[in-house]
Amino acid sequence: MHKQLLAFDFGGTKLSAATTSAEELASARPNWTSKRRVFSPPGADAAYDLQTMTALGQELLGAQRPSAIGVSFGGPADFSSGRVLRSDHVPGWQNVPLQAALEETFGVPVRIDNDANVGALGEAKLGAGRRTPDLFYITISTGVGGGLILNGRLWRGLHGLAGEIGHVVVDPGGPTCLCGKRGCVERLASGPYMSQDARQELARSPENGRILADLAGGKPITGEIVARAAVAGDEIARKILLRGARALGLGIGNTANLLDIPLFVLGGGVTRAGSLWWDEVRRSARSTALAGIKFEVVPAALADDAPLWGAAFLAQSLL
Amino acid sequence: MHKQLLAFDFGGTKLSAATTSAEELASARPNWTSKRRVFSPPGADAAYDLQTMTALGQELLGAQRPSAIGVSFGGPADFSSGRVLRSDHVPGWQNVPLQAALEETFGVPVRIDNDANVGALGEAKLGAGRRTPDLFYITISTGVGGGLILNGRLWRGLHGLAGEIGHVVVDPGGPTCLCGKRGCVERLASGPYMSQDARQELARSPENGRILADLAGGKPITGEIVARAAVAGDEIARKILLRGARALGLGIGNTANLLDIPLFVLGGGVTRAGSLWWDEVRRSARSTALAGIKFEVVPAALADDAPLWGAAFLAQSLL
Repeated sequence: MHKQLLAFDFGGTKLSAATTSAEELASARPNWTSKRRVFSPPGADAAYDLQTMTALGQELLGAQRPSAIGVSFGGPADFSSGRVLRSDHVPGWQNVPLQAALEETFGVPVRIDNDANVGALGEAKLGAGRRTPDLFYITISTGVGGGLILNGRLWRGLHGLAGEIGHVVVDPGGPTCLCGKRGCVERLASGPYMSQDARQELARSPENGRILADLAGGKPITGEIVARAAVAGDEIARKILLRGARALGLGIGNTANLLDIPLFVLGGGVTRAGSLWWDEVRRSARSTALAGIKFEVVPAALADDAPLWGAAFLAQSLL
Repeated sequence: MHKQLLAFDFGGTKLSAATTSAEELASARPNWTSKRRVFSPPGADAAYDLQTMTALGQELLGAQRPSAIGVSFGGPADFSSGRVLRSDHVPGWQNVPLQAALEETFGVPVRIDNDANVGALGEAKLGAGRRTPDLFYITISTGVGGGLILNGRLWRGLHGLAGEIGHVVVDPGGPTCLCGKRGCVERLASGPYMSQDARQELARSPENGRILADLAGGKPITGEIVARAAVAGDEIARKILLRGARALGLGIGNTANLLDIPLFVLGGGVTRAGSLWWDEVRRSARSTALAGIKFEVVPAALADDAPLWGAAFLAQSLL
């Protein structure tokens, strides 16, 4: 009999569920048995999202019962206690025993972890990292997070907080981050902070941001618009996008100096900014690392599905 | 029959050799069977040091034959090939197959590694890290190097270059390092660079460095003098010593964010600078790391003997 696995991805604005089997995961190119993705409406809270996800899972399973469930959560979640610590996007997630709740509903073992760790697992097993046992997966979007795979396993650290490249300081004289420090990678390289800095810079010197203002057309400046304006030659957008890429590259190069690992896999919305951004990330990472330390910086291969596949592997680890 | 182990430490200016046994290493407080330390004279080259060390080893062994030999080398050395890459202190060490040379002389298996890695092994097995499987050992003296222990084992990385905290960039706008980058930990925190910066600053504004000038008394300003002048309240010395401590703390805090390990063990001459320096290292490390990541920053327990004990464990790993 096939051992069915259920995977959940609580992605903030998106809720995804999928099923596969242990046999399928062991194959060269596994597929989902079934998969559904829905949007969480703007007013949703933790209870709503949990109910929606449970219904999605039950719909996909039908009369079947899974052998185990793996969960990716888009925010701080503690693997060892099975608790969500909070969400920066959806209210009501403070200290929620998500693992216990799902174990009660479905009557099978459950494991949860944050999306950076689970995404790292997905990319390591099936994506850009399938040929190397050591990699650092970094997701650059609303925030900047990372999941570290050493010897083919997630390195979570003593408190489950390893991989926090978002709050690695790369410019102690830089702008202040929400965390209180200055010049964190996230403060310089995440989408919302780049948009915020572009808006402020545009207000200060509109003459240097004409393309940016045109592209925004009176609407709020998003990270995507900053990237497009930078490519089109806008001075402000270019400065901010390249500063973010440089900061991320510094964090990558410093990590390479500490760990001498061969692969950095980048995912998340900001990585769609194009070659201007990628070239600067790679240049900065390369020039920060010692000459003898060779590594590659590549895009994630599973795109939005990385956390969902990682969750399936998390479930598999329970068998 | 006891399995005798021979340990060598090529320390640049000091050459040390010692013998112990596998049985002794397995005890709670192992002792050396015999130990000798000599100074390498200023004109010495690689051939002289190797000959001196061989004679020391043979003297300690007498008629006995060791089961294995472990070697700590004070400079870049490649564990996997058994070669010394170079020395920044002693000429003639370019690409020397030290492991093969010692294997031929003594007729037993030999392993070599750089002093930061071997010192980490010593501190992990017998020193400040004996109660934790994960630690980062950092030596701050002429240079700044590090050895990372994860799950009780040295993490060397793909090219044997992991642990290079000396060339982690903590201030991209800072002064230029010999490696070509700006604001490396080593550029700000190592003894010779602190002395150099103090000398230059003193030449520029002698009125701010009266205590420093007095303590030097016309002789060259050393790292030790900078530390003493800082404690005595000298403005220049204080600024430079604290800047170095801050840079090291940033590197430590950033490493904690990436790895979430509980212990940082600091050794090397600069750690003798006193509580002014230690307090600033700890403050900077603590404020750089995320609040949830708890760790300690402690002095090395084995002092100069850390690489020698590490070398004995390196030898033991060959049995």
